[in-house]
Amino acid sequence: MKGVRKILFLNQSDMKKIITMKDAIDSIDEAYKLYEKKEFLMPQRMQVSNNLNTLLLMPCFINQAIGTKIVTVFPQNTPLPTLHSLVILNNPRTGEIQAIMDGSFLTGFRTGAIGGSAIRHLAAETATKLAIIGTGVQGLYQAIAACTERRMTDIYLFNRTRDKIPQFKKELQKWIGTDIRIHTVLHAEDAVKEADIIITATNSYEPVLPDKQELYKNKIVIGIGSFQKEMQEFPDALYKTAEHLFVDSEDAIKETGDIIIPLQKKLIHRDSIIHMSNYIVNKEKIILNREKSIVFKSTGMALFDIVVANFIYKKAVKKNIGIRLSFS
Amino acid sequence: MKGVRKILFLNQSDMKKIITMKDAIDSIDEAYKLYEKKEFLMPQRMQVSNNLNTLLLMPCFINQAIGTKIVTVFPQNTPLPTLHSLVILNNPRTGEIQAIMDGSFLTGFRTGAIGGSAIRHLAAETATKLAIIGTGVQGLYQAIAACTERRMTDIYLFNRTRDKIPQFKKELQKWIGTDIRIHTVLHAEDAVKEADIIITATNSYEPVLPDKQELYKNKIVIGIGSFQKEMQEFPDALYKTAEHLFVDSEDAIKETGDIIIPLQKKLIHRDSIIHMSNYIVNKEKIILNREKSIVFKSTGMALFDIVVANFIYKKAVKKNIGIRLSFS
Repeated sequence: MKGVRKILFLNQSDMKKIITMKDAIDSIDEAYKLYEKKEFLMPQRMQVSNNLNTLLLMPCFINQAIGTKIVTVFPQNTPLPTLHSLVILNNPRTGEIQAIMDGSFLTGFRTGAIGGSAIRHLAAETATKLAIIGTGVQGLYQAIAACTERRMTDIYLFNRTRDKIPQFKKELQKWIGTDIRIHTVLHAEDAVKEADIIITATNSYEPVLPDKQELYKNKIVIGIGSFQKEMQEFPDALYKTAEHLFVDSEDAIKETGDIIIPLQKKLIHRDSIIHMSNYIVNKEKIILNREKSIVFKSTGMALFDIVVANFIYKKAVKKNIGIRLSFS
Repeated sequence: MKGVRKILFLNQSDMKKIITMKDAIDSIDEAYKLYEKKEFLMPQRMQVSNNLNTLLLMPCFINQAIGTKIVTVFPQNTPLPTLHSLVILNNPRTGEIQAIMDGSFLTGFRTGAIGGSAIRHLAAETATKLAIIGTGVQGLYQAIAACTERRMTDIYLFNRTRDKIPQFKKELQKWIGTDIRIHTVLHAEDAVKEADIIITATNSYEPVLPDKQELYKNKIVIGIGSFQKEMQEFPDALYKTAEHLFVDSEDAIKETGDIIIPLQKKLIHRDSIIHMSNYIVNKEKIILNREKSIVFKSTGMALFDIVVANFIYKKAVKKNIGIRLSFS
């Protein structure tokens, strides 16, 4: 049909050729600026559940793109992947379908970049030691992002199931090379006490970090795992030593046990929660107290997906990467 | 990644190789049976609007498939297409993405089949003359469906903008051949008075059929155009002569001016509205009065899309049609 353009299909290996972690972190910062200026339209996600299985539909409009992320969550599909996802981009002026891309890679990579952005803006410049608690695919992208933003010398890995660590290490070294020392530890505490930056990336319903205040001073702790009310990665001690509690969106305050539970317990006060978008735009007005600990909690939002997906799409067109599909 | 299968991409020409109009009408009948047995999960569609532009997300679960139709409606994009759509199928047992297909062709074709199913079950076996009011793409598939279900001898075409008719006729003859006589008329009334089956497929906000009761006796009138509260294709006279008013779903009763307005005017009573699904399953209990007129109104639903899309997907796999895409 006249005037109908082709649809660009991008898979994981296409996307890896196009976007670096630094690009993704830049895109996340761009998304925070849109969030702060309210230049987006993002209704609450639609959730359809059939027994244990769920379909999630997450649309978002920005001036430059219209995007929809579709995710299925089938927890009983193990050991095969329990999540499947794709992202669709429509032209914001004509409505045409512009691109279809792998949503699973996009989600993992952009979640890494959310952690990376927090490190960029909140971590000490001198940070060199990283702890990763939870060595799944999310932990991988968090480690890559941390190494993008700071000159790491040592990475400490902890996972409940230890046999997953060798494969994780191999995969991580494909991205960051072999210069950075990688240590496997038996207890989360062994990783926490060594590190400047601690990242939790688990699906835990109970705190995965030790409940000891003295461990968290002068450190930044990033949580990207718990995304439901009943889930929790952070211990009470962390809130007691934290002066600053950053979140990636207003939704995080309503969605995750890592914010809801300490608010209920009065370990933190609503006023001490700072939006990352606000901090990025008004950095000079908020002074970080590095003597205490800095905590950042992310639950993600479709705005991040769409800004990153649109970056990938634009660059794919320029570089002529991907498969062009026609609906006619 | 282990266990991840390829995604089947099907465009319009693939789909035309796979599904006949008879197949599509059979699928619609199958969907009615699921609807009657309540063997589906179909939340209200999600609508995101930015000024005049709209994104619609329409998910539906059945035992055999999980599907989502995504539609953008950009009314100011004329003369280019104002609607763009795709349909995604996920495996109902694993959540994997199985297929991505052109949603515009699917919607037009399945809407034709909804009209075709109404003709199959409601029209006199002896019907030979068809009137099509509105010669857009929807009218085309309605005409094809009517010719699939009854031995037509004459088709009467009416369109507000007459210069669209020659192209429509050419396109229609590609599907039905040149044996059936095709007439172009100057007034809708000239088509209505000749026809046994009258189909309206316009975007009108005012009745497109004449307001004369005597025109509709012994006839079946099918409306597939009006899909909003303010839209209307049928005149008051039609409701006065109609004994049976069939709808394709409960939503039609809430969504279209062609049902809402006559209910408000008390031209029809809620009790005289029959669900097509109920009629198909309990045919012997409902006796049609052909002396009067039979009216069928459709506004569509995602269940139809998913049942038809799943038929196409299964057959495409068998026939090895379409492009296989990998997310890895």
